[in-house]
Amino acid sequence: MKAAYMFAPGDVRVEDVPMPTLQEPTDAIVRMVRACVCGSDLHPYRHMTPHAEGWAMGHEMIGVVEETGSSVTNVRKGDFVIAPFAYQDNTCELCREGMQTSCPKGGWYGGEEGAAAGGLQAEYARIPQADGSLVVVPGVTEKSPDDLLASLLTLSDVYLTGYHAAHMGRVSAGKTVTVVGDGAVGLSAVLASHQLGAEKIILMGRHMERTDLGRRFGATDVVPERGDEGIAKVLELTGGLGSHVVLEAVGYMPAYVQSYGVVRPGGVISRVGVPQYEDAPVGFGSLFGKNATLTGGPAPVRAYLDDAVPRVLSGEINPGLVFDKAVALDDIAEGYKAMDTRKALKVIVKP
Amino acid sequence: MKAAYMFAPGDVRVEDVPMPTLQEPTDAIVRMVRACVCGSDLHPYRHMTPHAEGWAMGHEMIGVVEETGSSVTNVRKGDFVIAPFAYQDNTCELCREGMQTSCPKGGWYGGEEGAAAGGLQAEYARIPQADGSLVVVPGVTEKSPDDLLASLLTLSDVYLTGYHAAHMGRVSAGKTVTVVGDGAVGLSAVLASHQLGAEKIILMGRHMERTDLGRRFGATDVVPERGDEGIAKVLELTGGLGSHVVLEAVGYMPAYVQSYGVVRPGGVISRVGVPQYEDAPVGFGSLFGKNATLTGGPAPVRAYLDDAVPRVLSGEINPGLVFDKAVALDDIAEGYKAMDTRKALKVIVKP
Repeated sequence: MKAAYMFAPGDVRVEDVPMPTLQEPTDAIVRMVRACVCGSDLHPYRHMTPHAEGWAMGHEMIGVVEETGSSVTNVRKGDFVIAPFAYQDNTCELCREGMQTSCPKGGWYGGEEGAAAGGLQAEYARIPQADGSLVVVPGVTEKSPDDLLASLLTLSDVYLTGYHAAHMGRVSAGKTVTVVGDGAVGLSAVLASHQLGAEKIILMGRHMERTDLGRRFGATDVVPERGDEGIAKVLELTGGLGSHVVLEAVGYMPAYVQSYGVVRPGGVISRVGVPQYEDAPVGFGSLFGKNATLTGGPAPVRAYLDDAVPRVLSGEINPGLVFDKAVALDDIAEGYKAMDTRKALKVIVKP
Repeated sequence: MKAAYMFAPGDVRVEDVPMPTLQEPTDAIVRMVRACVCGSDLHPYRHMTPHAEGWAMGHEMIGVVEETGSSVTNVRKGDFVIAPFAYQDNTCELCREGMQTSCPKGGWYGGEEGAAAGGLQAEYARIPQADGSLVVVPGVTEKSPDDLLASLLTLSDVYLTGYHAAHMGRVSAGKTVTVVGDGAVGLSAVLASHQLGAEKIILMGRHMERTDLGRRFGATDVVPERGDEGIAKVLELTGGLGSHVVLEAVGYMPAYVQSYGVVRPGGVISRVGVPQYEDAPVGFGSLFGKNATLTGGPAPVRAYLDDAVPRVLSGEINPGLVFDKAVALDDIAEGYKAMDTRKALKVIVKP
């Protein structure tokens, strides 16, 4: 079968590799109907140390169950499923607390050969902990409309990562929310904040075709300025006090600095952009002095899936609008390039 | 009148200074009945740059109102009052949101000559924004029992700072709480966690006379080990998963590192020890990877006072037990020394 591998910065290739097989009784094999390229895939695309055997890529997929291990009971051959970007048993104490990305039996897709699971930018994938990971979507098939499939695919990561930011930031009715970053996660955070009833949603971003989608998702204000200028603008829009909630969907230090600059005393900064730093200001001059809360992390999307699927099926939310380019798996390198050069916001992959 | 000033590390003296006078119509003058020395006063006591005119010291006081400005209506001459360690108008948007320590009209006591307000380790003090700051305690006088006065005094800072930690950490029934630090704030955080219904309260501290008081306040376990050993012990006590809430009442980096080491995925670290650092780990390896939340800051004790006063008056809580030494204002230098050398946990000051 075909699967995407990355060998060096800018070097993604589709390889012919053996079909995945059941390795544990808790596994399932899923045939990909849609996959996609994640903003986080661009980090290795820009910076990875060259690797002769390559890294298996991809962690977002919807598809059809082909085969299940002997102990799998929640899904069966032929089911149409969403695979969250991390797998988990969904029964342990941490899963029950809504922290599925910390499940001791859980893990991540892709990476080096010999990693616990392969990548999901592939024709077929082995899904560990299938009972806890796969969510069946009744009534949907690979022949369902493209836009419905696109929205369902966002529930494997991007939309529910934006939702996680808003959830951890305790977005609720009447609050002012500032979203830092106009990538697909940032726009998803705008949509999620709107879904959760935020009163004012300020989107910090400078790419008009993206911020226009942000407005369509519910942004009430757009601030293209960055740094001190951007901070001043947000303070001006919030009566000088700052934003109750800041959703940081970038992961670089300037976005972090911007976040504590615009957060209101007692407010929350919720990060879902994977931090490309370890140390950051947290003392009296940044977080502590104004009782700002810092939260966020890898989204336990499994925790939010049961609520989100019906909202997509009913058309209440249409998060699939973040996809603005489609490629065949064979042409995925072109998809990476389009995202890397910002010619595409997010690229959907067909078999 | 007499007031405590600090001139250099280890050099605290009681000076004879002019009586404070009303400067704004919103001011009140309060005669001190009890004041005390704060753990945070030890930072300049150890590290301050020598200063010829000295810093006015102290920010905790209960006393009797002597005089009020023309616009003050909530308190009057003769009222017995608690003065929170920060002043505020208690009517603005941030105050109404419970963030009184960020009130634009608020401020701190003490510091250099010419600071907005003097220190409260003094016979008399000028209290700015008296209507928003002073809380009248009916039925109490300077002749009330010493232990009642001591407990009321803790509501100006130390107990409600511990309470703030627990409140921001969302301590509630059934949760496991780890308190880092067995100083007066840490022990207050134990008592507050108990008041809020925590199931298991692990106190990390190694001074037995203090941890014994911690047990009296509600600690169920004491961990004297520090660093990796201490982290391992707390993990062992929490089924390997870590603590839902960590209350950090120290302010130094090792306490921060210990905090993210013992916090459970999805848990909260709430800091009230004033950070003696600005940058700290917050990336994938510390907070982000396990969706840990970092919160806390200077306690808006005014927000909690109305609830706390009746609990002290009824004897439900007895936070004044943190005081283990009393000195006259004239002998306050001895009080500083006793706290600096850990011979006293917290020192109460009489006129």
